[in-house]
Formats: sequence, C-alpha cells, structure tokens
Amino acid sequence: MNGSGLRTVAQQRQAQVDGVLNRFFSLAKNRAAAFGPEYVQLWESLEENTNGGKRFRPRMVFAAYEALGGTDLEAAAYVGGAFELLHTALIVHDDVIDHDFVRRGIPNISGAFRNRALDAGASNEVAEHNGVSAAVIAGDLALFNAYRLIDRSGVGDAVRGRLLEVMDDALFASAAGELIDVEFSIAADMPRVDDILTMERLKTAVYSFECPLRAGAILAGASEDVVTTLGDFGREIGIAYQIVDDLLGVFGEAAETGKTTIGDLREGKRTVLVAYATSTAEWPTIAPLIGKSDLTEDEAAAVRELFISSGARSFAQGLARYYANRALARLAEPHIPPALRAELHPVADAVLGRVK
Amino acid sequence: MNGSGLRTVAQQRQAQVDGVLNRFFSLAKNRAAAFGPEYVQLWESLEENTNGGKRFRPRMVFAAYEALGGTDLEAAAYVGGAFELLHTALIVHDDVIDHDFVRRGIPNISGAFRNRALDAGASNEVAEHNGVSAAVIAGDLALFNAYRLIDRSGVGDAVRGRLLEVMDDALFASAAGELIDVEFSIAADMPRVDDILTMERLKTAVYSFECPLRAGAILAGASEDVVTTLGDFGREIGIAYQIVDDLLGVFGEAAETGKTTIGDLREGKRTVLVAYATSTAEWPTIAPLIGKSDLTEDEAAAVRELFISSGARSFAQGLARYYANRALARLAEPHIPPALRAELHPVADAVLGRVK
Repeated sequence: MNGSGLRTVAQQRQAQVDGVLNRFFSLAKNRAAAFGPEYVQLWESLEENTNGGKRFRPRMVFAAYEALGGTDLEAAAYVGGAFELLHTALIVHDDVIDHDFVRRGIPNISGAFRNRALDAGASNEVAEHNGVSAAVIAGDLALFNAYRLIDRSGVGDAVRGRLLEVMDDALFASAAGELIDVEFSIAADMPRVDDILTMERLKTAVYSFECPLRAGAILAGASEDVVTTLGDFGREIGIAYQIVDDLLGVFGEAAETGKTTIGDLREGKRTVLVAYATSTAEWPTIAPLIGKSDLTEDEAAAVRELFISSGARSFAQGLARYYANRALARLAEPHIPPALRAELHPVADAVLGRVK
Repeated sequence: MNGSGLRTVAQQRQAQVDGVLNRFFSLAKNRAAAFGPEYVQLWESLEENTNGGKRFRPRMVFAAYEALGGTDLEAAAYVGGAFELLHTALIVHDDVIDHDFVRRGIPNISGAFRNRALDAGASNEVAEHNGVSAAVIAGDLALFNAYRLIDRSGVGDAVRGRLLEVMDDALFASAAGELIDVEFSIAADMPRVDDILTMERLKTAVYSFECPLRAGAILAGASEDVVTTLGDFGREIGIAYQIVDDLLGVFGEAAETGKTTIGDLREGKRTVLVAYATSTAEWPTIAPLIGKSDLTEDEAAAVRELFISSGARSFAQGLARYYANRALARLAEPHIPPALRAELHPVADAVLGRVK
C-alpha cells in the first residue's frame, strides 16, 4: 500500500471521500449560520475532528469495492464517508465517556468548547461541562448523518437496504463493545484475555474493518460467500490490529504512534497484556502499578520489563500474529478473486509488520 | 381530544405505534442477548424510557396523516415510532448533559445503570460515570434507529427522501437549540425573551410539533402549501406549549404536571418568566433566588409573588396565548381541509387551556 503506483490510487480514493465530506460539511455550516456562530463553530469542530483521521474505513470500502470490479467511485465515496462519520461519532462519544479533552495531542470537541468557555470567563467545572455537552451534541449530528450519507449514495433500494443493515451491525456491535469496556471499570476482577478480545472485536474491529469491507463488497455486487469471507477477514485482522495497538501503547515509539507509552498504564487500560499478566507470578508486582495515575517513567520501564519476563508481551505478539494469519488464510480461499487478495494482503502485512 | 369517540381513535393509533416499537425492541433485545446480559439490560432500559412518554409525537404524525386522508396506518406508525425514538434519544442525551439520573420520578438510563453499579459495589463516582456512559450509548442506539424506522416504513423513494429531510431538520434544529441552552449557562448576562423563544423553538418545538406534522402531511401526499402551513402551525403551537411549560414549572400543580414547582427555580432554568423579570424593578430581589440550590418553599413563594407583581407571569401568559392564536390563524387558512382543522384545533385548545 506504500508503493508509488498504489499511493496514487490511495490518493485518488481519499480525494473522492474528502470531496463528499467537504460538501457535506460546507452545506451543514452554511445551514448552521442561521442558528448562530456557536453552531457554526460546533460544525467546524466536528469537521476538524473528522478530518484528523487517516480515512482508514473509507480505504477499506474502496479496497473491497474496486478490487471486486466496482466503478462508481462517487457511490463508494459516499459509503466510505458514512463510515468515516460513524467513526467520528463513536470517538467523539468515547471521549465523552472517558472524559477526555484531547485527542492526538490537540483539543477534541470537548476540549475546544471547554477552552472557549474558559476564555469567556467560565469556571473550570462549568467550562468542562460546556465542552462535554457540545461533544454529546456533535456526536449525535455525526451519527445521524452517517446514516444519511448511505441514503444519499444514490444506490438502488436493495443495495441501500443491505448497506443500512451493515451500518446497523456496525453500531450495534460497537455499542455492545463500548458497554463491555465501561463494565470493566466496575468489575471486581480483571477481565480475562477472551473478554478483552471480545470487547476489542465489538468496540472497534467490527465497525472499522469488517463492516466497511462488507459494505464495499455489497456495493460492488459481490456474491454472498465473498461478502462473508471479507467480513471474516476484516474481523480477524481487526482483532490483530487492536492487539498490536495494545502492544504499541506500552512498547511503541511515541514518535511513530503519536501517543505516549505511559498513558495506557497510567489510566489502567484493560489490555491483552494486562489480562495475560494476571495469570503469572509477576502479577502481584505489576498490579499496583496498573492504573497508578502518577506512574513514573522508571515504574513504567519496570512494568515493561515485567510484561516481558512474565511472557505477556510475547504472548500478545503471538496472538496478534495468530489473528493476522487467520485473516490471511481467509484471503487464500479459492472464491476470493486475485485482485482482492492483492489489495488486502498488504493490509494484513502492515499489521504483522507492526508487531513488536 | 378527550371525548370518548376521539379517545378510541387515539387508542387505536397508540396501539399501532406501540406495535411497531414493541417489535423493534423485541428484535433488538433478542439480538443483544448474544452480547451479554448488560447489553440486554441496556435495551430494556431504553425501551422503558421510550414507553414512559405519552406518544405525543406519533399522535401529531397520525393527526396530520389521517385528517389528510392517509390510510396506511402501519406506515404512519413507523414514521411516528421514528419520532418517538428521536425523542427518546434527545431526552436521554439531554439528561446526560444535565447530569440528571431521574426523569418523571423514576431512574432514567443513567440512574438505572448507576444503581446497578452501586449494587455491584462501585464508588458513587464510578457508578455515576457508569450510568452516564450507558446513557450516551443508549441515546446513540435510539438516534440511529429513528432514522432506520423511517427507512423501514416501506414508503417509496421520493417520500422516504422527503421524510428523511424532515427528520434531519428535526435533529439539526434540536442540536442547535440544545447548544444555545448550554451556552446560556456560560453567558455573563441573562438571556433575553427572544433568545429564550429561539432556544425553546429549536430545542423542542421543531422536533415535537413542526416536523411530526410535516411528516404526517408528506406521508399523506398533501400539497406543498398544506405541508408548509402545518409546519407553521406546529412551530407556533410548539412555542406556546413551551411557554406554558415554563409557567407550569413555577405555577403549576405538582399533581397535574408530575413535577415540582420549585425544581426550575432551584436549577436556575432560563425561562420566559426569568428573562422578562430582568427588565423589571423586581429583578434585584428576584436575581439572588434564581438558581439558589437550597431555595426554601417560602422563598419560592416569594419568587412567585414577584413574578406576579412584576408582570412577568401575565406577560408569559399573554405570550403563550399570542402564539397559540397565531397557530390557530394558520389552521383557519382556506387551503386547510376541515377534517385537519377539526383534528388540530383541540391541540391548540389544550395548550390554551393550560395557560394559568
């Protein structure tokens, strides 16, 4: 996916999706102007948050669609844009749930509106409430319009109905995963490895990989077995991706991942590493450091060493490879056209290449 | 609308809407069972919150639809159900924004999940966070499926497209209104009367009255001028309704309205009464009591007297009557069929009857 020829295809696809989303946001901002400057600012903030991502889900839609012979790039861009808006809605509301005011180092919607309220002289408490409220509203707008972009893609009734089913599957699973994640915080015990995998599959893999790939295949008019196999591939590689994300959250290079390698530990994030470690002799030493909000760099380094000596790191690495290989095995099935295999093999390779 | 003959029609309509929503929630709960008992409970809680209302918005859809000759009651029930789910989504997220755990005297979704977490031994802080998180997720599910019910109503492409535009108008306005309401809390000055009316129109009147009536008319195949006039009627009567709501929040009978007449004062709710009072000689006496969280019954009685002596109450009563009469004037226009006039006149009369 990084060859110069392929990059051109990727850029073309991205430009198409950007076009759809730019028009969508332009219209919304014009329309919002009649309701006052705050509302325009909310839409601007929502647009910034939508444009901050890597258009990963639209890329999955396009990958399946074009490799399966689809040629209506505008329709694919609408469907891709719909998944991008769904993603925005979910992360904006996830930040509400996590009470986060920053994402990727810059203020998210909650942060932007909190800062705006602080500038207006509000107390910190009132300003935070203002920010979180704005984010609740903005996420609703993004979510609603995700559905709307599918409807506006111009596809016929039967395909539209199936695409809406896929979007529904995406939100239904993601809501379930988010709820499981929230439940982890009140559970008396640390979750088990399979609980973590279930949560990561539902919360992220289904809507980020499985559903966009299925949607692209349905839009291309693919046979049911291809749609199903692509969905399976997406789910497996999506789980692998999330395990790698857990690993990089502790062992990654901040310069590469854009996030610190201490944040997950400080917030006590439930990961495959943590879940595995609970079954090892090192756990009594690790446990008090997980979720320690003032964890020092030295303590973080100690946790990393304990994850290594306990075998948690190599277990997680092995598990990520296992799911990536399962994904590749689906691609190898005979009913998968070679063009589709060629398009998606690098996606799995990229995940495998990040296992470290 | 309370005559025995009309009640039968109302009951038939309600049963039709209940049927659509019951089937929707049954399917969702069955589907959720595969994701664990918490998810089923979330759907149950969402269903309870949806069933707690008076099906007011579906009644508006049906009123316009049947009076304009519509006979596909199942389609009308889907569209009415869609507005009911939109309403649920908006109040669930409004409660998130207001940090409320109770609605109509019983625990809302935040409250149910907070109590559940407390029972599981969580601290109050963790339990509240758990409850609010569940409500964010549940509201998303309701919002998304509001759209979906329109799509499932079985209507043709052109009508479906227009109904989705109306739903979009509803959410677009409501989000703007919610944002204005949130902004009131950081504004240095008390809002003016017209700011209050704008907020109340956008936050509630558009999605509760204007849009359901327009949707019913569109579904019935009404001409554009009837759709527009009905929308105008809905907006005007919706504003009147909200002004009456402000009045009843201070002067109502708790037994009749189901809410106390001290809550709005304690929380410092921005209402037409308050906005008017700021321009009067009584304001310096009233101001310190608005938003006083430990306001006593004696102090509340004093505020009521000051609202009366300052003219705020009679102004608000007059304003409510003004908007209700404006609404009635729209109904009197010649292109409004007599059956529609007969159906909606009692709606305006009911609002006027509550002015006290």
